[in-house]
Amino acid sequence: MDQPQIAIVMGSSSDWNVVEHCFLTLEKFGLNAAVKVMSAHRTPHEACEFAEKAKENGFKVIIGAAGGAAHLAGVLAGHTTLPVIGIPMPAWALDGMDSLLSTVQMPRGVPVATVAIGKAGAVNAAILAVQILALADEGLAEKLVQFKKDMHDEVLASDAELQKQING
Amino acid sequence: MDQPQIAIVMGSSSDWNVVEHCFLTLEKFGLNAAVKVMSAHRTPHEACEFAEKAKENGFKVIIGAAGGAAHLAGVLAGHTTLPVIGIPMPAWALDGMDSLLSTVQMPRGVPVATVAIGKAGAVNAAILAVQILALADEGLAEKLVQFKKDMHDEVLASDAELQKQING
Amino acid sequence: MDQPQIAIVMGSSSDWNVVEHCFLTLEKFGLNAAVKVMSAHRTPHEACEFAEKAKENGFKVIIGAAGGAAHLAGVLAGHTTLPVIGIPMPAWALDGMDSLLSTVQMPRGVPVATVAIGKAGAVNAAILAVQILALADEGLAEKLVQFKKDMHDEVLASDAELQKQING
Amino acid sequence: MDQPQIAIVMGSSSDWNVVEHCFLTLEKFGLNAAVKVMSAHRTPHEACEFAEKAKENGFKVIIGAAGGAAHLAGVLAGHTTLPVIGIPMPAWALDGMDSLLSTVQMPRGVPVATVAIGKAGAVNAAILAVQILALADEGLAEKLVQFKKDMHDEVLASDAELQKQING
Amino acid sequence: MDQPQIAIVMGSSSDWNVVEHCFLTLEKFGLNAAVKVMSAHRTPHEACEFAEKAKENGFKVIIGAAGGAAHLAGVLAGHTTLPVIGIPMPAWALDGMDSLLSTVQMPRGVPVATVAIGKAGAVNAAILAVQILALADEGLAEKLVQFKKDMHDEVLASDAELQKQING
Amino acid sequence: MDQPQIAIVMGSSSDWNVVEHCFLTLEKFGLNAAVKVMSAHRTPHEACEFAEKAKENGFKVIIGAAGGAAHLAGVLAGHTTLPVIGIPMPAWALDGMDSLLSTVQMPRGVPVATVAIGKAGAVNAAILAVQILALADEGLAEKLVQFKKDMHDEVLASDAELQKQING
Amino acid sequence: MDQPQIAIVMGSSSDWNVVEHCFLTLEKFGLNAAVKVMSAHRTPHEACEFAEKAKENGFKVIIGAAGGAAHLAGVLAGHTTLPVIGIPMPAWALDGMDSLLSTVQMPRGVPVATVAIGKAGAVNAAILAVQILALADEGLAEKLVQFKKDMHDEVLASDAELQKQING
Amino acid sequence: MDQPQIAIVMGSSSDWNVVEHCFLTLEKFGLNAAVKVMSAHRTPHEACEFAEKAKENGFKVIIGAAGGAAHLAGVLAGHTTLPVIGIPMPAWALDGMDSLLSTVQMPRGVPVATVAIGKAGAVNAAILAVQILALADEGLAEKLVQFKKDMHDEVLASDAELQKQING
Repeated sequence: MDQPQIAIVMGSSSDWNVVEHCFLTLEKFGLNAAVKVMSAHRTPHEACEFAEKAKENGFKVIIGAAGGAAHLAGVLAGHTTLPVIGIPMPAWALDGMDSLLSTVQMPRGVPVATVAIGKAGAVNAAILAVQILALADEGLAEKLVQFKKDMHDEVLASDAELQKQING
Repeated sequence: MDQPQIAIVMGSSSDWNVVEHCFLTLEKFGLNAAVKVMSAHRTPHEACEFAEKAKENGFKVIIGAAGGAAHLAGVLAGHTTLPVIGIPMPAWALDGMDSLLSTVQMPRGVPVATVAIGKAGAVNAAILAVQILALADEGLAEKLVQFKKDMHDEVLASDAELQKQING
Repeated sequence: MDQPQIAIVMGSSSDWNVVEHCFLTLEKFGLNAAVKVMSAHRTPHEACEFAEKAKENGFKVIIGAAGGAAHLAGVLAGHTTLPVIGIPMPAWALDGMDSLLSTVQMPRGVPVATVAIGKAGAVNAAILAVQILALADEGLAEKLVQFKKDMHDEVLASDAELQKQING
Repeated sequence: MDQPQIAIVMGSSSDWNVVEHCFLTLEKFGLNAAVKVMSAHRTPHEACEFAEKAKENGFKVIIGAAGGAAHLAGVLAGHTTLPVIGIPMPAWALDGMDSLLSTVQMPRGVPVATVAIGKAGAVNAAILAVQILALADEGLAEKLVQFKKDMHDEVLASDAELQKQING
Repeated sequence: MDQPQIAIVMGSSSDWNVVEHCFLTLEKFGLNAAVKVMSAHRTPHEACEFAEKAKENGFKVIIGAAGGAAHLAGVLAGHTTLPVIGIPMPAWALDGMDSLLSTVQMPRGVPVATVAIGKAGAVNAAILAVQILALADEGLAEKLVQFKKDMHDEVLASDAELQKQING
Repeated sequence: MDQPQIAIVMGSSSDWNVVEHCFLTLEKFGLNAAVKVMSAHRTPHEACEFAEKAKENGFKVIIGAAGGAAHLAGVLAGHTTLPVIGIPMPAWALDGMDSLLSTVQMPRGVPVATVAIGKAGAVNAAILAVQILALADEGLAEKLVQFKKDMHDEVLASDAELQKQING
Repeated sequence: MDQPQIAIVMGSSSDWNVVEHCFLTLEKFGLNAAVKVMSAHRTPHEACEFAEKAKENGFKVIIGAAGGAAHLAGVLAGHTTLPVIGIPMPAWALDGMDSLLSTVQMPRGVPVATVAIGKAGAVNAAILAVQILALADEGLAEKLVQFKKDMHDEVLASDAELQKQING
Repeated sequence: MDQPQIAIVMGSSSDWNVVEHCFLTLEKFGLNAAVKVMSAHRTPHEACEFAEKAKENGFKVIIGAAGGAAHLAGVLAGHTTLPVIGIPMPAWALDGMDSLLSTVQMPRGVPVATVAIGKAGAVNAAILAVQILALADEGLAEKLVQFKKDMHDEVLASDAELQKQING
């Protein structure tokens, strides 16, 4: 496969069952992502170095997923000028609110592009990454148009199904 | 000026005192943004049409700022495949929590890249947009590196100042 | 059956298990509702067009049910002058707080009549719709009086049952 | 003036500075509302009796505004089959969250049509009441269409103004 | 049994599995409580009348248990000068926060003595009622002293047990 | 003056501007309260001893007011079998939510009768204390009936005033 | 075993299944902790006395674990000048928010060193206690360096595992 | 002055007006603290290096103060085995809740000893640091005992003052 343009970094391998949906969504667009388990607190050097070298290593977008006091995406953003997307992971308490606030409320100058908590966010982080790459890749842009059309058609189909179910 | 690549859309002209910081930050990077007052609820046709034609009109990134039940960024995202950044505006109650949740918790398939509430978010929406455009613009990428260095140096300078203040 | 006066619109067919309680409550009042799966973000054109034509198509009340960044009811309200009722659906995180705030905190000029989160709200959206229609339909008004009396009697009956259970 | 079809009930006369915006909005539609200070806790008999006789006294919609443990709208709804709209008033703590939850989270069978917290909600309660009455009053319905158009035009005008301000 | 001095009123018979712990705790103190299912919204007349006549019927303390927009205890308090204790019931969403806020945040002049959410609160409502009655009943007062001593001894016993478990 | 039956304990003398409303309300009922500044954390011995001896010293009700991690009322309740009322004081952050939760969420066996946050709670703590004492004091009971009547009449008067203001 | 330097105090023996992770983590560092069930509200004398004598009994750090209105750690801190660490236990409602706020929001002068809610906090309370003791114990300090290295290596190992899983 | 044993690191020099209370409290104990402005996101290298070398540079305790997505204390903790104390700074929105959650909810293995939000926390971070250092410094331990006694006496004095004020 090609050198991946997208890196997915998660704070713990236990996050994979959610983060996998990010990976799989990228695959649907024909994109291969590098996946890394790296922690802002337990492997800080690796995480910082990864972010610092991400650009010269050919990455264009970094996706960080973490829960609780979710510092990972923000710390990566501190070490790169690439766009960083943050997925707040539902964690052991507070229903994801801690993860959301510690991902999104970044101070001036160091944004994290935050998506929804959990699985919905994992999928959307992928779409957002595709949208960013598609600015310079007309093929991808067409796939996004098709993806949007498919979502649209699925809603219509599920509506049709429901009409049958209700009206017999 | 050139055709702007970035559109800043806000739900009400009263948001300008915050959103202006997004505009001014873009200016620092030499970027001219189109600024529009358009409401998801009061001028829905204009908002939807704007988003639908944004790509063919040459835009690359859309920034939406709204407060309360902040639907604007999400609605724009429903009508485009461009990346959409959402700024949750502090509104008339609940300290911005309503704006944040209604901006970030987008369902699968339609991401909004959400930044911090209020002025910090307005600045960061601009930086994020620059980071996205910089993927295809080495000049911008260099400005980001410089911007990061300047922030860094300002922190060092403010530290030096504080040392003087404390230690006389 | 007659042309329905009430439309129930939900953002995803997975909402049906909750929204069905709205439909079934209307049935108890002899009212047939049109049920639609339409998304503010995935089928925005259909949703907007539905709301715009709702009045000329004979609808009097629109009920919108969505979760997370729940924009559906508010978006429908932006495209019609009919009363729009919003059911905040419990979603994948935050226990329905995101759905509630993004449904109820609408800006001036575009109200959404918000009811409780989840199943209680689904039932109450139906009652509220009936209350609105009953203003011009004395038969319905009488059914509401009877409904209120039935609720009242059920509470008394459950009290009687509990007395037996406790006092043997 | 005619017998008013809308009653605005507030828990304390100190709420008037917010609730007045409901009254004034109704006036713009040529509607006269009865305004009452009545408390679910301090004048419960008057409040209950008012709600019970509201229909025979010619009212069609009741609007209740209260803060804190905001029981007023719910208590009124327990005593009438008319639609009841609730305005959660910002109160002495918690930024209106207590008022919102105690207004909207009504149990099955007794809905309160809840609007936004505070002044935005006061205006929207009026619009919602007008939308309900307009179902049987084509003149009002036309005023709503005009109101929506005016809001639309004001947004366009404020956009035009901003363009001038920015681009000189 | 004697005329009970304590009334436990709950909004729905489905609350009994929690409220029963209030009843059983009172039984441990040799107190018989009247238990009623009465709703502030579905049987408002019965609820109001019950509260109004509670004093002349020999009650000294009223305990109200309700969830969601939990108006029951507050409404009872509006109709009596007896002390009213409120148990916020965990309800269908928001983890009991709605019940807590709509029980405790009563406006000036009409207090509800609020205890913890759910089962802990049900037990504590009973203890609080006993504490109030014990002011005029030395026998009860002695039972409270014994109850406190028993709690104390149970903690010591559970500590002893844990020491054994840990240290073998 | 007589030996007071009510003790008001506050965590800091800076709470007095709010707690004074409790004291003044008791005065309206002809009740003299002992007022103490005592801290669960800074003068724990005094606080515990005060609670332990409160009954033999003739107190019947203890009111505790504290903010932040508001342990005062709960700690007092651990040292007495008298009813303890807690006033959650608005503190330096979080709008009183911390004070409320740390006052009300007491574990089984040790209730704190919690009233509203801040000034409304200060007044209501007084009323609740009076309601408790009135169970054994018919004179106080009559004053409570009069107080309720006065509140009622004030609402009617403020309604009359508003009618004049609106209708000229 | 030696006289333990660390005391773990929990409000109820039912907390042990979480608090045990604190104990076990200390064991990994070769540290024996005294474990006590003591309640701020049910055995206040024992709790206060324990804290008061903790220093002369040879303890250096006290860890308090409690839920709901979690006063235990704060009360212990009021009776000692030793550092007190607080573990907010997830309790019967509100997902641990009540425990967190009533542990962390201590007033000036009486700190509680608060760690995360639940099991993560139980482990971290142990690490924090070790970090404190290690300031005067070079052997412990080396174990902490090793612990940090082990955590680091586990993350790298789990990353390696995931690479295999993904890339086959 | 001696080499300081305590480092106070803040994310921005604008935090100084709050953090100064930490510095001044340490001064009261005769302790000189190193004060640094360093940002987890803007000067990450300096921050990480500072934490890594803190121990060999003679520091014993690090205090980190930051607001919003407050990563500073956690990031420092990732780079040292010294105890790290976190002060959640009130920031531009959400009343400090974002700062609190992103400071306290650290994952297993990397604790941050979190104190209260804002000024109370700044003072308490100092006390906690003194408590830690006092374990190996009997002079400091005595100062803590005196500090506790002074706090105690101030409460008694403020009580005496209030008695005078009330009773004339």
